[in-house]
Amino acid sequence: QSTLTVFGLMDLSVNSVKNGSTTTKSMDTAGLNTSRIGFRGTEDLGGGLLAGFWLEAGVSGDTGGAGGGTGYNSSNASTTGFFNRRSTLSLSGGFGEVRLGRDYTVNFNVSGKFDAFGANGFGNGANLYANKSPFDKSSTATTMGAASALRVNNAVSYFLPKDLGGFYGQVQVGAPEGVAGNGYKGGLFGYAAGPVDVAFSYSQIDVFTSDKLKTTNLGGSYNFGVAKVYALYNQSKYGALKYTTYELSTSVPLGQGEFRASYGKGNAEGGTAAFNNSDATLWGLEYLYNLSKRTAVYAQTGSLKNKGASAMSVGGLGDATGAKSTGYGVGVRHMF
Amino acid sequence: QSTLTVFGLMDLSVNSVKNGSTTTKSMDTAGLNTSRIGFRGTEDLGGGLLAGFWLEAGVSGDTGGAGGGTGYNSSNASTTGFFNRRSTLSLSGGFGEVRLGRDYTVNFNVSGKFDAFGANGFGNGANLYANKSPFDKSSTATTMGAASALRVNNAVSYFLPKDLGGFYGQVQVGAPEGVAGNGYKGGLFGYAAGPVDVAFSYSQIDVFTSDKLKTTNLGGSYNFGVAKVYALYNQSKYGALKYTTYELSTSVPLGQGEFRASYGKGNAEGGTAAFNNSDATLWGLEYLYNLSKRTAVYAQTGSLKNKGASAMSVGGLGDATGAKSTGYGVGVRHMF
Amino acid sequence: QSTLTVFGLMDLSVNSVKNGSTTTKSMDTAGLNTSRIGFRGTEDLGGGLLAGFWLEAGVSGDTGGAGGGTGYNSSNASTTGFFNRRSTLSLSGGFGEVRLGRDYTVNFNVSGKFDAFGANGFGNGANLYANKSPFDKSSTATTMGAASALRVNNAVSYFLPKDLGGFYGQVQVGAPEGVAGNGYKGGLFGYAAGPVDVAFSYSQIDVFTSDKLKTTNLGGSYNFGVAKVYALYNQSKYGALKYTTYELSTSVPLGQGEFRASYGKGNAEGGTAAFNNSDATLWGLEYLYNLSKRTAVYAQTGSLKNKGASAMSVGGLGDATGAKSTGYGVGVRHMF
Repeated sequence: QSTLTVFGLMDLSVNSVKNGSTTTKSMDTAGLNTSRIGFRGTEDLGGGLLAGFWLEAGVSGDTGGAGGGTGYNSSNASTTGFFNRRSTLSLSGGFGEVRLGRDYTVNFNVSGKFDAFGANGFGNGANLYANKSPFDKSSTATTMGAASALRVNNAVSYFLPKDLGGFYGQVQVGAPEGVAGNGYKGGLFGYAAGPVDVAFSYSQIDVFTSDKLKTTNLGGSYNFGVAKVYALYNQSKYGALKYTTYELSTSVPLGQGEFRASYGKGNAEGGTAAFNNSDATLWGLEYLYNLSKRTAVYAQTGSLKNKGASAMSVGGLGDATGAKSTGYGVGVRHMF
Repeated sequence: QSTLTVFGLMDLSVNSVKNGSTTTKSMDTAGLNTSRIGFRGTEDLGGGLLAGFWLEAGVSGDTGGAGGGTGYNSSNASTTGFFNRRSTLSLSGGFGEVRLGRDYTVNFNVSGKFDAFGANGFGNGANLYANKSPFDKSSTATTMGAASALRVNNAVSYFLPKDLGGFYGQVQVGAPEGVAGNGYKGGLFGYAAGPVDVAFSYSQIDVFTSDKLKTTNLGGSYNFGVAKVYALYNQSKYGALKYTTYELSTSVPLGQGEFRASYGKGNAEGGTAAFNNSDATLWGLEYLYNLSKRTAVYAQTGSLKNKGASAMSVGGLGDATGAKSTGYGVGVRHMF
Repeated sequence: QSTLTVFGLMDLSVNSVKNGSTTTKSMDTAGLNTSRIGFRGTEDLGGGLLAGFWLEAGVSGDTGGAGGGTGYNSSNASTTGFFNRRSTLSLSGGFGEVRLGRDYTVNFNVSGKFDAFGANGFGNGANLYANKSPFDKSSTATTMGAASALRVNNAVSYFLPKDLGGFYGQVQVGAPEGVAGNGYKGGLFGYAAGPVDVAFSYSQIDVFTSDKLKTTNLGGSYNFGVAKVYALYNQSKYGALKYTTYELSTSVPLGQGEFRASYGKGNAEGGTAAFNNSDATLWGLEYLYNLSKRTAVYAQTGSLKNKGASAMSVGGLGDATGAKSTGYGVGVRHMF
């Protein structure tokens, strides 16, 4: 008897994005949440011990794409696998959980949690450290993806037990297997009780040079009832180079709907004048209406302003070096 | 509680195809129907409103392949996605249906429906505008795939409500996202009542030049009881170039079995003498026997005669420039 | 009503492999069994006739990879398909079974069965004819993968009925479809009764030259109760070139656990002095403990010693030309 569950999510939106002076109309597949399909299950081994697996592929609902090659950024190469979102095997019990495989980094476990947009859409703070950030993994070895370290391969994680009076934590090690930039070590520690949640994470990525890429994330949220407020700080360092982002965001429940807003900025330091000048600011607004627990319609807008050589955008199609990128979109999200 | 269904179809046949003087024995995976696997589901949102998703990948049962790269032809690039057959999210109700994502074009919704073979096998009319047609998308920008426009990415479709006294219709727009040949606009209108079904579709594909690729499809069927008869007309135009196909086909129920036959021709006009001479004719015969509602065995044959520079074939392995391509096959099809 | 089953297996281990003087720490995904996910089902057609399909993809649990490109070796190209492990459609009944599609070769049906490690892990006999064997398919046309012929595309197999007093057998033909090395013909015959199981298989692979690649496998096992003992002989021949492997292995049940051991050697003959000197020896040890029927933890070690130009290894990361390759690992395997 199998406890296997097939699950997923489809999110499709119609967008207009203006990067500098170029406007592109497009369909996107991750406005509210990233589209996905997956298989997961657990087995009760007795004595409080559980085995569990999780295989999850990203889906590009607009084109039928699935799995790697959809542009996920990862501290640990291999974005080409089919189950690019998660591929793990766990043993858990009173001692906590040991989890093996490909999974979110401790960095993203903080930076994604303390963004009201959950790292999706025009206004989400991750746009400030997306593909074209100075610390992007896809650029050169000395500027490898740090704040943007979403996932890690070949990882062993240990999670603290659930019941520690609100405290939670994780340590995570990813085997380099002889590839520069794939050696990952990180930890996360947090506290959640009542309306409060705060967490801190730190990681080092081995780039096989004298220095390592070091990333710090610090976030907190407070639920006032009428609104939940989030604050997030991320910093990546490589030698003297530093890239720091700050974000404030909020979600406001309105009957069956919800309103969300964000403001963030990114600051580059410690490099050439051009590098130091490549700062950026971001704001975003979103309204979603729940047709059911599983299905919602939404409208959103967001704008990112690049300074100097900064070349980021709020949408996936091209960038806006030194200019503004603004997006408008409406969409549907359905969970299954 | 999920309404998710895992579904699919496996079709494997053993074939012998003679292109010109070369005979190749092969196994194929789409003799009666194209092999596939998919995930779909619906959610009742109340008030007559339904949400539904559909993710479907083609399968090459002979080699274990799945998804893109199996040679699907599309008016809208990206044939490399995993869910290459369909990837859609719908909201439907009394107003009709709004469907977003990758889906069949309105062109194929007519040309596939009014072919007794359902666009599969040696004798199906689509062989007359397959990969090597003068209007094939995979060749040059001025001869992009028109009659063969099977699917479209980034599409928004609106379907008329079901209950309009037999009338049905669809309009469909696909966002170009800055890629020549990906901008798609089309419409379909039809009438089905009792034994009669007739439909018309028209589309324009934006190739970013002064002219557009224009495709017209007109089809009808009449069920006489002892036999159902189909007629189909497809025309693609690009500037002065025209490629037109005509097909007559029939299916005859015989107890648990069914007999099918087709005859078609393709006519090129408006270009060089060589282009105008690249015509072709096609005939096909098929017998299938249903072992159950889900499982059938079948035998089929078909032959395509190329004139001049026409280089098409009835099977997937190579072509027969200016010569005859004839196939024989027996197979099994199982739906799950 | 569908009889479809979603099934699979996740196996993740943490390993240290020393090839020559280089030690690499890694995570692997096939220590005890190869990770996979699949879809299968059967339909009762009445009169004892069954239809059945099977689609199965390999999974790289450590990186989220799935399907082809994970390095499966096959006598019949196309290792790039998603359902790279198996993709078949069957009709079976009193007459036996006819199976179409991509499947294990008759060679592997013997060589995998009579190895106590089931062709997985550091100590499994298949390491002696893995990717870098002199008869590896991935090298040159004259040294194509023989003993290592795991799977075949475009295949038609006939299996003898189940109830023949212990005798079993299979014949298998794979269509070349015009590609050298893809034409496969093989047969298997065996006898299993009580504690005894013995089987023989033979195949010819068409490399479109004057000679064919010929592979012979002979295996047997005897279950003494306190231990099951396996013996296996594989030989590949191409013209005068010969590569032969011998393996003895055993599994010893110990309560909820099991102990396994193997010893094998590979011998090259009939070629240049360098070729003839490229021999190798292998041993392996493994202990597994079943937490349940579906979930086990295990520890294993194994070592392969290359002579001369032999360049094989016990792990997947690099080889050890003329040197020793030794691995240590601990892991978890969960079936679903």
